[in-house]
Amino acid sequence: MAVNKLGSQSIKLNRAPSIVSAAAIVGPKEGEGPLRDYFDVVLEDDYFGENSWEKAESKILRHTAELAIQKAGLAPGDIDCMLGGDLLNQIISSTFAARELGIPFLGLYGACSTIAESLLLGSVLTDGGYADHIVAVTSSHFSSAERQYRFPLEQGNQRPPTSQWTVTGSGAMVLCSAGKGPFITLATTGKVIDMGIKDANNMGAAMAPAAAHTITTHLRDSGLLVSDYDLIATGDLGRVGRDIVVEMVAGEGYDISRIYSDCGIEIFDEQQGVYSGGSGCGCSAVVASSYFYKQLMKGKIGRMMLVATGALLSTTSSQQGESIPGVAHAVTIQSANPGR
Amino acid sequence: MAVNKLGSQSIKLNRAPSIVSAAAIVGPKEGEGPLRDYFDVVLEDDYFGENSWEKAESKILRHTAELAIQKAGLAPGDIDCMLGGDLLNQIISSTFAARELGIPFLGLYGACSTIAESLLLGSVLTDGGYADHIVAVTSSHFSSAERQYRFPLEQGNQRPPTSQWTVTGSGAMVLCSAGKGPFITLATTGKVIDMGIKDANNMGAAMAPAAAHTITTHLRDSGLLVSDYDLIATGDLGRVGRDIVVEMVAGEGYDISRIYSDCGIEIFDEQQGVYSGGSGCGCSAVVASSYFYKQLMKGKIGRMMLVATGALLSTTSSQQGESIPGVAHAVTIQSANPGR
Repeated sequence: MAVNKLGSQSIKLNRAPSIVSAAAIVGPKEGEGPLRDYFDVVLEDDYFGENSWEKAESKILRHTAELAIQKAGLAPGDIDCMLGGDLLNQIISSTFAARELGIPFLGLYGACSTIAESLLLGSVLTDGGYADHIVAVTSSHFSSAERQYRFPLEQGNQRPPTSQWTVTGSGAMVLCSAGKGPFITLATTGKVIDMGIKDANNMGAAMAPAAAHTITTHLRDSGLLVSDYDLIATGDLGRVGRDIVVEMVAGEGYDISRIYSDCGIEIFDEQQGVYSGGSGCGCSAVVASSYFYKQLMKGKIGRMMLVATGALLSTTSSQQGESIPGVAHAVTIQSANPGR
Repeated sequence: MAVNKLGSQSIKLNRAPSIVSAAAIVGPKEGEGPLRDYFDVVLEDDYFGENSWEKAESKILRHTAELAIQKAGLAPGDIDCMLGGDLLNQIISSTFAARELGIPFLGLYGACSTIAESLLLGSVLTDGGYADHIVAVTSSHFSSAERQYRFPLEQGNQRPPTSQWTVTGSGAMVLCSAGKGPFITLATTGKVIDMGIKDANNMGAAMAPAAAHTITTHLRDSGLLVSDYDLIATGDLGRVGRDIVVEMVAGEGYDISRIYSDCGIEIFDEQQGVYSGGSGCGCSAVVASSYFYKQLMKGKIGRMMLVATGALLSTTSSQQGESIPGVAHAVTIQSANPGR
């Protein structure tokens, strides 16, 4: 068996790549939420000086990647590869940003799981000696996502209680084979799981089974106990998905309720009118790159599992009657001393 | 510097993962072309028993992956990870296939460069000891691509001479850390390059500069000479893009004209009415998984560079006046004995 494989779906990163810097830029609504003090930049409006939401999203992603690179004391030319993606068709936010940055680019699509996929593959590249520096970056934008996936905003559609609010923002992290941490020590690649949910306004329920599957597989593969973790954070299941995942994981014999959190719940107050919570490729990316990263740096989180979750639908597949499959990838991040 | 890095954008795969099997399934038009005898399956019609072209494309991809796995003497449960993507929004062909196959899945989006991106990342995972077996697979479908990117087929639009014909088909390869070859020995990650082309019917010209940049960077990074290669094959530049890439690479001091080929030119006869040639995620994947793979197995090709090329546009970015950036990733495949 391959030396760095662990169980059925996991890998160990023996050299434990460091996340040497992180940056998060968010929109005005996110800047009014409970994590406002942790973000690097809160935009005044969601156009960011551009004439379309799509161009604004690409600019946000580019600025976030640049800021993370700068915080690491590096220049774009020092980065071996940019790994990332977004929710827009053909991941145009990421590709147009990569064009401007001039960094070799590997585009990923895992819907809202993309930040974990980027960290997983970035860890492999740095851990295996294939790269010195990687930037992992994803974005989403409420207005560009709504009009692509649901309805034109001008239509003023009502939102059902299970709906979530796509986060406007981007999170970026620079990985390096050397560094003082936080360290990525383990990762689990998810399977595509589908329990037959067809409601595009109930993504939390569509993604929860994939998250539960990845969390339980990770624990089995690694031999770690729930008590070895200070935090297990899913990407954007929201309030509806949270309850499902806790129950499904409990059904497999693991009680994660006391250390479980969801980025989609953390990022907004209930009073902000977001119903079930935040979502989008940017949701887990900005929360991980700001709030969690700072807690890891201070040692307030010793070991966490980031389980970013993606709903793998398109408007075409929905119109053709397909259900919404989910996928979840996990990375284990430790504040210090990965001698496990 | 990371031990497996080579120059600015390339890596070396010291354990040289093997492509232990390959499979290609194509549509009827591809089955009438010059490579007809090399494909595993030629479909009788492009619906493949489904009621939409999108569902047909996903089924083609799934059957191709299954066939490649079977030819390797393996079952889906033996595969650590599936890496791949397609041209449809949110890569639904790949994700719905991954759902059926039950293989852990990392979704990629590099437009028509995706098969090289899959082989590059799959090589890293197997070479670095993170996986024993990987399946790399991509697909495209003429009818699903036309209606998503251009016009409804029912409209009967005329095609300009620079236009290309999206290949209906899927190519899959199984990578293993051990094996008797063909071996993947080097890889180069491309940058996103944009020379300002805005015509979605002239993709060859949009992608050619990225291909030229990756080819010259690869040669500089590796120190290999053009004469060390028996074949340099781009993905789907077609006749228009071919001439541009040969000229641009010559401008950098490398004459590749005698060993250069393009999968988009190989797959169709000029008499088939495809104008500049074939294109699509499936184009380079099926040609590499059939014709080139068999030539590598027989030793008729000793060392080749597969440079799959992607045009990174969306209908939204085009409508907003953006030009079409290109990206090209390269992998070096050798028939035997990678002692270089």
